[in-house]
Amino acid sequence: MARYAYVNGRYVPHGEAAVHIEDRGFQFADGVYEVVPILGDCMVDAAPHLDRLERSLSEMKIEMPVSRKVLELVMGELIARNGVADGLIYMQITRGVAPRDHKFPSGIRPSIVMTTKRVQFLTQKKISDGVKVITIPDIRWTRCDIKTVALLPNCMGKSEAAAAGAYEAWQVDRDGFVTEGTSTNAWMVTNDNKLLTRPVGPEILRGVTRQSLLRIASEEGLAFEEAAFTVAEAKAAREAFVSSATSFVTPVVAIDDVTIGDGTPGPLSRRLQGWYLDYCEGLKNSA
Amino acid sequence: MARYAYVNGRYVPHGEAAVHIEDRGFQFADGVYEVVPILGDCMVDAAPHLDRLERSLSEMKIEMPVSRKVLELVMGELIARNGVADGLIYMQITRGVAPRDHKFPSGIRPSIVMTTKRVQFLTQKKISDGVKVITIPDIRWTRCDIKTVALLPNCMGKSEAAAAGAYEAWQVDRDGFVTEGTSTNAWMVTNDNKLLTRPVGPEILRGVTRQSLLRIASEEGLAFEEAAFTVAEAKAAREAFVSSATSFVTPVVAIDDVTIGDGTPGPLSRRLQGWYLDYCEGLKNSA
Repeated sequence: MARYAYVNGRYVPHGEAAVHIEDRGFQFADGVYEVVPILGDCMVDAAPHLDRLERSLSEMKIEMPVSRKVLELVMGELIARNGVADGLIYMQITRGVAPRDHKFPSGIRPSIVMTTKRVQFLTQKKISDGVKVITIPDIRWTRCDIKTVALLPNCMGKSEAAAAGAYEAWQVDRDGFVTEGTSTNAWMVTNDNKLLTRPVGPEILRGVTRQSLLRIASEEGLAFEEAAFTVAEAKAAREAFVSSATSFVTPVVAIDDVTIGDGTPGPLSRRLQGWYLDYCEGLKNSA
Repeated sequence: MARYAYVNGRYVPHGEAAVHIEDRGFQFADGVYEVVPILGDCMVDAAPHLDRLERSLSEMKIEMPVSRKVLELVMGELIARNGVADGLIYMQITRGVAPRDHKFPSGIRPSIVMTTKRVQFLTQKKISDGVKVITIPDIRWTRCDIKTVALLPNCMGKSEAAAAGAYEAWQVDRDGFVTEGTSTNAWMVTNDNKLLTRPVGPEILRGVTRQSLLRIASEEGLAFEEAAFTVAEAKAAREAFVSSATSFVTPVVAIDDVTIGDGTPGPLSRRLQGWYLDYCEGLKNSA
């Protein structure tokens, strides 16, 4: 089956999907993106992802090039054309094409690109067995709350993790506190069973899955706090995990080769994972 | 006359020049670039620009996709095809096209894109009359010595400058010292006539024009020091200017609306400007 991408108003075969070399996304990282997971024919948390997309565009003074309604229609159409039951939809909006000049140009139309990918998330080994993470200095800019495509430091960190046989790199600020992973939010469980994750601020992305998990934790009566934690605290944690739209709740079993708990996914992580997947299942049934 | 771009081995009409939407330059800012000025049919300082390109690629673990010899041939050919006597050549090398994944993929071929632009540099008003700059916090990542296309904060700063009626924004570190402009290096002249510019390090780009100016200053017997200066020191300076491959020596006549000197380009800035243009002229005659 042909796989399509959506590029500026057209559904085109994926292999032919292209943008102009003076698209500001290519020359200046002048664009934002979102990734929405699809589970059992249902988009998970599409609304908060689109809310965040609108916020990112607004922070960067890029106009939404089409209405949200149209964007949602295109998302549905692309998923249908590509027959994606489980996987993800990726969308990127850049400021558009203009003669190269650092200054934001006026009067140009933003570019929209959308692709899908099939992924069988729930049978992934990382979900069941847990993963290792390493810790690295956070070398990024000061506006990590905007979901831009200026992802080079994240790519460098993820590659460093892979080279060390780990799934993720936790980035650490100047004061020794974990900010977040290169594509995930970071969590730990204290020895008195309290869930910790860093509060929102310019140092981290406002994870949509992070927000759903906090809500679930609250509904289930778990003790939790939005508070930064150090690498040392994380290494002494009872449990740890990462969250993201495509990692869901992925247990962490080692940090910098220090075993967390007994080296297998912790019970609270497992319960949260289960509750989160129940939540996703519920979205599907209510769709 | 048709204008051509060079894209991955082909000379294509500029309007049709495109890269795949999964080029990592577009999705991750995973690429580097250089801009080489052309004055009177002669490329200025092409060799150190290509040295820096090789360094940037090496820091990012991207292979040079063609030999330097071939790159130079393509540069010459594109300039000839586009009939550029005065202007610039822009080249961008990205890690290449791969299914979206933060981790650096292996076994893919880097992308090369090259364009030219005609510019009559020397008749620009900014060169003769000087410019205003504003100062803003430096919000960038910690590896500004690599000339990557992750230029979003630079674009934001340049736009902020433009909105304030200024040409450039000087970025200021946490300790109050000027790092550099968003696309230029920053210089000042002290009241005892010493030239100051920030030393190379991860906080600034190793400007090729900056390096040529330091050499000229040395040859001409000027007092100079590679030392960081504060915004307050700059505002009290006898003179100030910015340098870059396409700004040459551009005098600064106001910083945050504080007039520098008598509000016109200073004598030392003018002399350096003249010497630098003589140097460019000399390159042409020795070519």
